[in-house]
Amino acid sequence: MTETAVTGQKRDAEDAVHPFDEAIALDVVAEGWYVGRTHAAYANMVGPFGGVTAATMLRAALDDPRRLGEALSLTVNYAGPVADGPFDILATPVRTNRSTQHWTITLTQDDVVTTTATAVFGVRRDTWSSTEVSMPAVPAADEVPVFKVPALVAWTRNYEMRYVEGALPDMDSEPQPDSTTTLWVRDFPARPLDVPALTALCDVFYPRVFRRRGTFVPAGTVSLTTYFHAGVEVVEEQSDQPILATARAADFGGGYFDQSARLWSGNGRLLATSHQLVYFKY
Amino acid sequence: MTETAVTGQKRDAEDAVHPFDEAIALDVVAEGWYVGRTHAAYANMVGPFGGVTAATMLRAALDDPRRLGEALSLTVNYAGPVADGPFDILATPVRTNRSTQHWTITLTQDDVVTTTATAVFGVRRDTWSSTEVSMPAVPAADEVPVFKVPALVAWTRNYEMRYVEGALPDMDSEPQPDSTTTLWVRDFPARPLDVPALTALCDVFYPRVFRRRGTFVPAGTVSLTTYFHAGVEVVEEQSDQPILATARAADFGGGYFDQSARLWSGNGRLLATSHQLVYFKY
Repeated sequence: MTETAVTGQKRDAEDAVHPFDEAIALDVVAEGWYVGRTHAAYANMVGPFGGVTAATMLRAALDDPRRLGEALSLTVNYAGPVADGPFDILATPVRTNRSTQHWTITLTQDDVVTTTATAVFGVRRDTWSSTEVSMPAVPAADEVPVFKVPALVAWTRNYEMRYVEGALPDMDSEPQPDSTTTLWVRDFPARPLDVPALTALCDVFYPRVFRRRGTFVPAGTVSLTTYFHAGVEVVEEQSDQPILATARAADFGGGYFDQSARLWSGNGRLLATSHQLVYFKY
Repeated sequence: MTETAVTGQKRDAEDAVHPFDEAIALDVVAEGWYVGRTHAAYANMVGPFGGVTAATMLRAALDDPRRLGEALSLTVNYAGPVADGPFDILATPVRTNRSTQHWTITLTQDDVVTTTATAVFGVRRDTWSSTEVSMPAVPAADEVPVFKVPALVAWTRNYEMRYVEGALPDMDSEPQPDSTTTLWVRDFPARPLDVPALTALCDVFYPRVFRRRGTFVPAGTVSLTTYFHAGVEVVEEQSDQPILATARAADFGGGYFDQSARLWSGNGRLLATSHQLVYFKY
């Protein structure tokens, strides 16, 4: 039996295939060709949670025996909705250098492209290092209450969210002058962090326009880019404890806004920075 | 005769094909297939200036009669050096929706991939708008001296740079605790701003690690993502006047660092935000 002190949740180690691992599972058809399927637990308004789609596409390259080094950057473009059911992923290492490798990854359903991605992998080397930006000064995760997620979309129930600043608006919310949201977050049920889970967490923020307007409006990610600053061993040291995630927008207009996010380990390492462009209607 | 007051530079309107336009010129071979060639004026240490490569790849989609709407986002992955000489670009609209369109764009030489890109185009609509971040408070462009670019790489001579903060290090420079660089910049000779020129300007910053270490070290962009916040008409209103460009890094380590940049029009409109991951050795 595993017991997570914070949530009090218990489950048998025997049936411990985490829903996230089910959601990003892929079957190999041939070299670089995979079949996956959408997972009901990660459904969004339309199609699956974009974070899980990103993680699944990255996973195709991570699983490939041709893959060189660690994920350094990933860009996912959400071209059209992924329908419930199976999908194909084609992952191609278009160029392999001595220490870096470039991939193109495409998700299709019935030969129609729904999602494109490019990824850069590489070998990390010992160099001078410095984190120039600061982790926000926040209370410890266990001092922040777990947010009761409204039953709007399935995927949010798979994350334990503790909002320090900028929680999801409710019926009484007002427009805000600043779009910042900061939260402690981890998979629910708790799951040791790895690069796919971190990839998905980079998209865990509700749309920044909700906060600025104090209400829900139609919105969806168009393009998502993540830079993986920490090596795999640093990511995995985090284990199943909450990470600190913070995001804000720079600009809204013409039907689009951007979002820039930083994800920090519990002990203050910058794990990833992530940027996205989001469509909205308001 | 055109006279640019600030630089005093004169040239005949008759021979006014700007080197930038020469550098991003493309010949159409077939639908979505273009041939271009590197331009000596935009040479970098190895291969061409990454900003010009990005602009050329975007241009392939911009020129395509199948293109829908304006450029919203562009990601360029620099997979390998582009050799001096001709190159092929294949630009494919992989998905066209009612108001957005997704492209993959590949630059090859002798069928070897040197650069991959994805781009999102879309129709901008009238929506609620807000620029949440602030333009840095800086002196007017004409109060800042033009930087005398050292003759290290050709491409920098095609930009008029006026550093407000964080100029290129010299022999006497010390390491700095903050990587921020802010400059007024425009094409040299002056050229009216358009989306390709703005695309190139997003990569106009020298590597942030130079500033932090106070010295030159080997460095090169691995992946560059730009979000175009302003519509084409706002970009073109800027004409040939300097824009304000500011950039800084969040994290250095393992042989890579990131950079986030904002580019502002002279009258304070946020034209673009841009992010990149950069390889370095130190």
